Amino acid sequence: MNVTYIIGAGMIRFGRYPDRLVEDYASEAAHAALIDSGLDPRSIDLAVAGHSSQGRVAGQRVLKELGLTGIPIINVENACAGGGTALHTAWMAVAGGFHKAALVIGMEKMEKGLIAGNPSEYEAILGKTLPAKYALRAKRHMREYGTTAAQLAAVSVKNHRAGALNEMAHYRKELTLEEVLASRPVADPLTLLQCCPTTDGAAAVVVVNEMLARRAQRKPVRIAASVLGSGAYRNTKNDGISSDDDITARAATRAYEMAALGPADIQVAEVHDAFTIGEILACENLALCPRGEGGRWAEQGITALGGRVPVNPSGGLLSRGHPLGATGVAQVAELTWQLQGRCGARQVEGARVALAHVVGGSMPGVGSGACAIHILTN
Amino acid sequence: MNVTYIIGAGMIRFGRYPDRLVEDYASEAAHAALIDSGLDPRSIDLAVAGHSSQGRVAGQRVLKELGLTGIPIINVENACAGGGTALHTAWMAVAGGFHKAALVIGMEKMEKGLIAGNPSEYEAILGKTLPAKYALRAKRHMREYGTTAAQLAAVSVKNHRAGALNEMAHYRKELTLEEVLASRPVADPLTLLQCCPTTDGAAAVVVVNEMLARRAQRKPVRIAASVLGSGAYRNTKNDGISSDDDITARAATRAYEMAALGPADIQVAEVHDAFTIGEILACENLALCPRGEGGRWAEQGITALGGRVPVNPSGGLLSRGHPLGATGVAQVAELTWQLQGRCGARQVEGARVALAHVVGGSMPGVGSGACAIHILTN
Repeated sequence: MNVTYIIGAGMIRFGRYPDRLVEDYASEAAHAALIDSGLDPRSIDLAVAGHSSQGRVAGQRVLKELGLTGIPIINVENACAGGGTALHTAWMAVAGGFHKAALVIGMEKMEKGLIAGNPSEYEAILGKTLPAKYALRAKRHMREYGTTAAQLAAVSVKNHRAGALNEMAHYRKELTLEEVLASRPVADPLTLLQCCPTTDGAAAVVVVNEMLARRAQRKPVRIAASVLGSGAYRNTKNDGISSDDDITARAATRAYEMAALGPADIQVAEVHDAFTIGEILACENLALCPRGEGGRWAEQGITALGGRVPVNPSGGLLSRGHPLGATGVAQVAELTWQLQGRCGARQVEGARVALAHVVGGSMPGVGSGACAIHILTN
Repeated sequence: MNVTYIIGAGMIRFGRYPDRLVEDYASEAAHAALIDSGLDPRSIDLAVAGHSSQGRVAGQRVLKELGLTGIPIINVENACAGGGTALHTAWMAVAGGFHKAALVIGMEKMEKGLIAGNPSEYEAILGKTLPAKYALRAKRHMREYGTTAAQLAAVSVKNHRAGALNEMAHYRKELTLEEVLASRPVADPLTLLQCCPTTDGAAAVVVVNEMLARRAQRKPVRIAASVLGSGAYRNTKNDGISSDDDITARAATRAYEMAALGPADIQVAEVHDAFTIGEILACENLALCPRGEGGRWAEQGITALGGRVPVNPSGGLLSRGHPLGATGVAQVAELTWQLQGRCGARQVEGARVALAHVVGGSMPGVGSGACAIHILTN
């Protein structure tokens, strides 16, 4: 297995782009990543595009816009984990020696009924939508660990504060705890401002082998671990809400092993905060904080910028936004810039080890179907 | 790069299944492949699912039906080349040593406006649909090489004759040349019976490393080459219809090189005959027959069962049917069985080297966006 690096990252400012084609703004993100890498575009010999519902050969439409010809491309879908899955696929291709330089594109335009679900998703039809599922997990966390509504809301306050510092975030507005708690209830205990907004976006990174990394214009970021987590397709605790913990925890164990690093080594993380409770559970399942402590850590600022383990310095899904396939790539773009010390006001000082986590593809009764974890070092 | 094998294949009979969920019949195909392989399902450590428009995490829905838990899965989309792309992705994962045994699933339910196209497909809106594009290529072939309408139709007659011998084919009815020529015109010179039908289906193969191949219950089939071809996104001859030749020819060159074999070594092939002219062009672009001779070869039976180079012994897309993501995997299932000598009345005697070819993802003005070629040996 060859050592693999990220040498460039780019994204568009996340937001709402009803009048633009997804291939238009995704090619803008890809172009930015190529420029950032300094690599001769003719060195790129593979593209992998992650997206969920952008029609056929969407990645090819981006390459056509870019004018990048003669490059094989794989379009990858794994719901909210699609961007991380695209990076994982590209990582295998480069780490396995099949390709030298891969362009990874994550993109989504959120206007095609992406929340409508599959014909077999009887749960959603009956009202157990994604917010409801996360709300059940929040309720359970409150009962089991004494997590409070204010601690849940603190995650949103924290991430919006970081997002306000990120020129690529969809929402760049700080929120008070009161505003978050007083916003419209979506699924108790989750209020509107504890749910990620509807956001279009695209991000891209350039993944290369060691030889090309040596020639990079900026400090290359090493992919120390790339793990695609698997769904259990069953309720391990027979409670209908714990499988998501399981998928992240199992993938994290493999990722730490692959990187020969432990959770205590992680200095900055981007995790899947589609809902506030999501970040709390992710921090616990990734063992960044003790089980049950996620809410308190957010409240006490331990996971805030300037805290001991900053989580979602980009603003996360809550503030930067969550265009499904784009999210996993945007996380890794953020962490690449963090490890290169290029994040300005939201820079995590001296960060050398970072972790990105996406999870998604919720399935009736059995939790999520995919989870991608990457550990990056500089 | 590790040597990689196929040790099992399965599919459902292709046809119309309006009342069945795609995950239902795809799990049936995957189950058949697992049984065929004789492998303990717990050895499978990766799944790759190829499909074009089956909603989010469709592969996970199949694994859930199968009861296969704890396996990471990548959903892959590359239009008509999606099945071949899924196999290529799994091949990289196993050949690169990342996984030991991969389940590759190709599947499609053709009821979601798959032909409607993307918002940017202005050509289709203006009438240059896929049949029209292939018709232009047929017209050109007739003018340049003297190919006749009867030669085009001979491809359909040949493939329906083979399909009649394939219990997995959608259409199992022999056709006469007169019937093909007299069927309703779709896009001159292509008549209805020269276009693939609308077909639902699923197929699966099990890809393993050498260690597991050694223990297989049947003779393993070696993947001698796996190539994902890239789109040029431009008209190399500035004529709007030749880019498809280019994508296949370039991928074929790389595949022959990887396999250290030449076109003359191919003893049986499954190629992309979505339209009769497609098979003729594929045979020429793959260098299985001289440029311009594809029509004559079909007419003279050289590419028929019993001929020198049997092409599409399964019946091809014309007779077996063409459920987008399923096709590439079904081709490889057929060739696996051919190389294992298990094809009964449609067996190509003594076949030891086989080639599978899919091409698709037609894009405005610039031809196809993906082409996957696999060379298999026994």
